[in-house]
Amino acid sequence: MRIAIINEISAADKNTDILKALDGRGNELFNLGNTRGSDSPGLLYIHTGLMSALLLNLKGVDFVVGGCGTGLGYLNSVMQYPGVFCGHLLTPLDAFLFARINAGNCVSLALNQGYGWAGEINLRLMFDALFTPEAGIGYPPHRAEPQRQARLLLAQVSQVAHRPMAEILLSLPEEVLHPALTFAAFRPVLEQAAKSDTGLRSVLDEFS
Amino acid sequence: MRIAIINEISAADKNTDILKALDGRGNELFNLGNTRGSDSPGLLYIHTGLMSALLLNLKGVDFVVGGCGTGLGYLNSVMQYPGVFCGHLLTPLDAFLFARINAGNCVSLALNQGYGWAGEINLRLMFDALFTPEAGIGYPPHRAEPQRQARLLLAQVSQVAHRPMAEILLSLPEEVLHPALTFAAFRPVLEQAAKSDTGLRSVLDEFS
Amino acid sequence: MRIAIINEISAADKNTDILKALDGRGNELFNLGNTRGSDSPGLLYIHTGLMSALLLNLKGVDFVVGGCGTGLGYLNSVMQYPGVFCGHLLTPLDAFLFARINAGNCVSLALNQGYGWAGEINLRLMFDALFTPEAGIGYPPHRAEPQRQARLLLAQVSQVAHRPMAEILLSLPEEVLHPALTFAAFRPVLEQAAKSDTGLRSVLDEFS
Amino acid sequence: MRIAIINEISAADKNTDILKALDGRGNELFNLGNTRGSDSPGLLYIHTGLMSALLLNLKGVDFVVGGCGTGLGYLNSVMQYPGVFCGHLLTPLDAFLFARINAGNCVSLALNQGYGWAGEINLRLMFDALFTPEAGIGYPPHRAEPQRQARLLLAQVSQVAHRPMAEILLSLPEEVLHPALTFAAFRPVLEQAAKSDTGLRSVLDEFS
Repeated sequence: MRIAIINEISAADKNTDILKALDGRGNELFNLGNTRGSDSPGLLYIHTGLMSALLLNLKGVDFVVGGCGTGLGYLNSVMQYPGVFCGHLLTPLDAFLFARINAGNCVSLALNQGYGWAGEINLRLMFDALFTPEAGIGYPPHRAEPQRQARLLLAQVSQVAHRPMAEILLSLPEEVLHPALTFAAFRPVLEQAAKSDTGLRSVLDEFS
Repeated sequence: MRIAIINEISAADKNTDILKALDGRGNELFNLGNTRGSDSPGLLYIHTGLMSALLLNLKGVDFVVGGCGTGLGYLNSVMQYPGVFCGHLLTPLDAFLFARINAGNCVSLALNQGYGWAGEINLRLMFDALFTPEAGIGYPPHRAEPQRQARLLLAQVSQVAHRPMAEILLSLPEEVLHPALTFAAFRPVLEQAAKSDTGLRSVLDEFS
Repeated sequence: MRIAIINEISAADKNTDILKALDGRGNELFNLGNTRGSDSPGLLYIHTGLMSALLLNLKGVDFVVGGCGTGLGYLNSVMQYPGVFCGHLLTPLDAFLFARINAGNCVSLALNQGYGWAGEINLRLMFDALFTPEAGIGYPPHRAEPQRQARLLLAQVSQVAHRPMAEILLSLPEEVLHPALTFAAFRPVLEQAAKSDTGLRSVLDEFS
Repeated sequence: MRIAIINEISAADKNTDILKALDGRGNELFNLGNTRGSDSPGLLYIHTGLMSALLLNLKGVDFVVGGCGTGLGYLNSVMQYPGVFCGHLLTPLDAFLFARINAGNCVSLALNQGYGWAGEINLRLMFDALFTPEAGIGYPPHRAEPQRQARLLLAQVSQVAHRPMAEILLSLPEEVLHPALTFAAFRPVLEQAAKSDTGLRSVLDEFS
């Protein structure tokens, strides 16, 4: 699986913990957001949400690990876009259930609130439960079928409720677009993913 | 403040706890979803999410308290729509921070996972922290202004990323629309809120 | 490892979950307390604490899994006795750290508060982290040696702070002793463990 | 109420948060342990547990707020002594229930694990729920009487299970006694509390 890690500036010092906790699982990791508290520019959840949704919609990655101080800012930001299904994970049990019941493509972590000593162990335990071949099998087992149907309906709702990604991009304020689209670590991965999307490429050309 | 409580069937037995925990705060309460495990029809988060978003967009209420087993299904459902900013609250600290930093109009509660004995006390302690005159003042204080700007940007993103509510309604599958729009406790409040919205009324007329 | 599970009556309906979550780890399990809400007599944490401490002191088992509604009643009860080092575990991270840092011989679970749907999964994830060959290796690694020394000092404190178990037994109120010592599932294991302890056997003879 | 705050060195940097969160409640506060990470000597939970138990047994204070990295080391340390009834508090709900059900005289806080940003707010919300005129009233109300009886029995068990405090002191290793009894901020409060306890004073004279 191709997993992007996209941190905003407020939690950039947890980026190393996330990478370590994701390591050794046979995934391809893309570290695309802030990685140090001293990074410039500092990304806000407004930006990391857009960056995450763009890559997911372009199928540039299969999954995004994001977050913010409490997890709720990034969650509300990334969920504005089509085709994003995001969990808010605080414990391994949250991860276990989200993987099986919701089987989304994104998680938002609380990286300052409640993130203390041994936080990196909690990340590892959560990822152990999250990245499982049992994603989407449902919990408890007898609820598997209605939960699968709910996921399918949710995906339909997401498509009809949102404008297409390229249209959205054309309407977003520049202060949302510019820091996101021009972020150095992110840009090449975005361009690669957007290669065959003419509409998106024309937007990208404006921010180069 | 006018607060709607909209429970899906899986957590209908927690509806009484929620009402009690909300009581005595001077709000106008609208109990619009399932209220007993034996209710028929049983609403799914697909339905309660739509019901919540409709009322918020029509300004029929100021705030919605929803939830599901883990809180993440309803959260992902209600967040598909424009103008919804939703917290996932498990502890009073979550509520304290969400009120001050995100100042959203919706919360999703975990009403089965981790909801044990004394869960109704936890609800009360969360609502104590959530419904505060300090909503939107920011935390910590020196971050108040960037947090306010982030909320304004998020609201803009929400508007440009979504199709208008009436258009969305016209495209939703009937199995999403019908149980939601015809639910007995919900319908009169919806009609009252939709009185002056011609587009919406024509959709409602199809489901009567 | 020989593990006793000793539930009080208030959480007897969680006994099955605990057994299932402990199963398949190669341990010898002794289910010695209440196992159904309808059990008679119903044990209180006052009793399960004594039962646990007795077996640990007699080396009848290596580890006790106990608990109560919040976990704090049993914890305060079992900790009254010598040679008991007990964790209060709510999440897998708690279990991970307790195993490595404290390496105790007892845990107290919150079996009503916060114990909702999927509670049995949380138990399993906690036991995964708790029963590890890495018990006592310390966390983080560079703190291993001071943590080891603290455990040794704590064991010394426990010995000098308490009266010997047989003396304690002679002084306990009958309403503590009787339900504990005569509990049908517990008695044979206790007798077996006390075989070579003359002092204790004379106390047991009074409660037969 | 007279409340002692006794921090070990690992969590000394949270001491200010604790003091602020306790402030303004009309209690008399005694700040007796480490207050800065650079403090010398650094107290370990072995020491802060003894210091807490001594003051409680001498009735020098009514309540002790302690803790350590996870809360479990201090908890196991302070619980070695007679007359100590200690909660392990992570959330306001824990505090609410511990106050009403267990009505103990000590709490152990997790001051590194899970202690992140806004940890000081969580402390305040916990203390709001902990220091209440409703301490000991039981929860839920119909369980008040059996819970009261359990507390009385627990106090009896504590007395018969432990040796008297002065005897314990005479048997403790010097590496436990010396840092605790000679700690500068603690010593005058201890001496004042021990004024009329001849046995204890003779031990104190050895460590001066």
